[in-house]
Amino acid sequence: MSLVNSSATWVQTHSIYNFTGSKYTSSRLYLLHPLKNKLPFSLFLPNPMTKPAIPFSTFSISAIVAKEQTNTPQEQSKTENDEVFNFKAYMTEKCNSVQKALDDAVFLREPLKIHKSMRYSLLAGGKRVRPLLCIAACGLFGGQESVAMPSACAIEMIHTMALMHDDLPCMDNGYLRRGKPANHKVYGEDAAVLAGDAMLAFAFEYIATATKGVSSEIIVRVIGELAKSVGSEGLIAGQIIDVCSEGMPDAGLEHLEFIRISIVDDIIDVTKSSQESGKTAGNDLVADNTTYPKLIGIEKSKELVEKLNRGAQYHLAGFDPDKAAPLIALTNYIAHLVN
Amino acid sequence: MSLVNSSATWVQTHSIYNFTGSKYTSSRLYLLHPLKNKLPFSLFLPNPMTKPAIPFSTFSISAIVAKEQTNTPQEQSKTENDEVFNFKAYMTEKCNSVQKALDDAVFLREPLKIHKSMRYSLLAGGKRVRPLLCIAACGLFGGQESVAMPSACAIEMIHTMALMHDDLPCMDNGYLRRGKPANHKVYGEDAAVLAGDAMLAFAFEYIATATKGVSSEIIVRVIGELAKSVGSEGLIAGQIIDVCSEGMPDAGLEHLEFIRISIVDDIIDVTKSSQESGKTAGNDLVADNTTYPKLIGIEKSKELVEKLNRGAQYHLAGFDPDKAAPLIALTNYIAHLVN
Repeated sequence: MSLVNSSATWVQTHSIYNFTGSKYTSSRLYLLHPLKNKLPFSLFLPNPMTKPAIPFSTFSISAIVAKEQTNTPQEQSKTENDEVFNFKAYMTEKCNSVQKALDDAVFLREPLKIHKSMRYSLLAGGKRVRPLLCIAACGLFGGQESVAMPSACAIEMIHTMALMHDDLPCMDNGYLRRGKPANHKVYGEDAAVLAGDAMLAFAFEYIATATKGVSSEIIVRVIGELAKSVGSEGLIAGQIIDVCSEGMPDAGLEHLEFIRISIVDDIIDVTKSSQESGKTAGNDLVADNTTYPKLIGIEKSKELVEKLNRGAQYHLAGFDPDKAAPLIALTNYIAHLVN
Repeated sequence: MSLVNSSATWVQTHSIYNFTGSKYTSSRLYLLHPLKNKLPFSLFLPNPMTKPAIPFSTFSISAIVAKEQTNTPQEQSKTENDEVFNFKAYMTEKCNSVQKALDDAVFLREPLKIHKSMRYSLLAGGKRVRPLLCIAACGLFGGQESVAMPSACAIEMIHTMALMHDDLPCMDNGYLRRGKPANHKVYGEDAAVLAGDAMLAFAFEYIATATKGVSSEIIVRVIGELAKSVGSEGLIAGQIIDVCSEGMPDAGLEHLEFIRISIVDDIIDVTKSSQESGKTAGNDLVADNTTYPKLIGIEKSKELVEKLNRGAQYHLAGFDPDKAAPLIALTNYIAHLVN
């Protein structure tokens, strides 16, 4: 892969990330530029005009990955080249790669407390959906995993930072995250604030220093776009409106759709136990958050998830089926987490 | 100024910033790489071997700027070209430039609360020592203000973020900052956490998107170095050790010197009122922080400031006196804040 190609891949990777990988705080899926809606395509395409190259239902594999079931029809997983795409193996391999990269990036050193705190949350597991989306999007354009890995890790670091700060008593006051006590329950509120800050800064340091085989022009662009997606018109925008809308009786669906796509996690917050979700269940109800289930009900929310997924699949239909397979599978995986 | 030159200037700017501009949390001056001590030169040079091109006492101008006095001997302010360097005018001009740039960068927009919170702390004033050091260091190598401004603003944004988080009840619990109620007293703890996060992310976005006339290679390097200076081996390292050492009876001077240069603000915390310093006075005493005044006393601490300043002046002595004048003056200004 040439430098030019890998560079192009990077931009595309992050454009795709802007589309599907922007889940940060309160475990919600936020639009990255909710106020400007700079998405490269609409997420709300109700009626795809063409049939996707890979059938919509082909990669309904959340059960495979999450529950270790293997009853998905393999014959439906074939791409146009008749190669079976094994999503479970893909997820396992990529998750291991991401875990190792994160482990190496934030290694234990002095001062011990801050690095222990960072590693506690960063290496606690999670589905690693965001870094995998980054890697899969890179792969969509022929880019190798190694090219996208620093960005993929940075995205996971930022996500983890957001969760750590979101769990603080002054925020959502979560006590459980990724199946373990929230960071501040173990290391204290002060360390949780500081470790989050350090993680956010390190995310940008890591992209700037660890990315190889990509032109500096592209790295600068990636940093600029990712930082924007985190800031006061991205992640934080969704979060502050979330904070402000808590208990607001007049916050409506239009308001909600304007700022975020949080349906999947809104549904999970209501329908799953803490043990199943690995985090404090029912936090939205306690805080009286304005969520999709609250406004339109569980079933309508699930229908909307399906519709969004169809839109995503439609937009992926024009790509090389072999290269698109991981991203298609990931999108289905996310959509089916609600079941 | 050529692209190459401005690029070189940038690197030097940030190296200089690493030296003198690393004051972030708890209003202390931290070394940026306290655990690795990667400073380009020693700060603890006791006996300069050569006489600086500009006498040490030439720019003792803190009184001019801080107290509007104009009794500094002008004849001592002449550079080798017999041009009088007017530090007061320099400070006023550059402060205004920085203020305008910050105002433009973080303009008021939706969501209003987060941007109001950010602007409240960012535009509250302060001495703007850090961005001015950045601009002055750029000028030391012939670089123009406009080249350094995005980085200068980013440094001030990061500093402001650190102050906002540092003032949180779970941290230093400060109620006064820059002469106004602390951010969380006005906008709430949740907004103060989020606005700080947004500011940190925006600092990197701003460097990546607003810097003009500098090669992408240098921008990537600047982002990498600045992010490292903020992270778990920089700003946060000092802060977490600060948190951990509170109330520790066995924390000694060696421990303190290893992690930070905080003498100026340690002294100010003890000797100045809240009205004079613009922030909660005596916080170190309340928290039983391990500070220089606590360990070696006020007078010895002031002597150490003088010694550090002489070391800084020594290292600036080899540069073009006209170009070095602002940085020399700024260094003296910082050193004399304790008087």
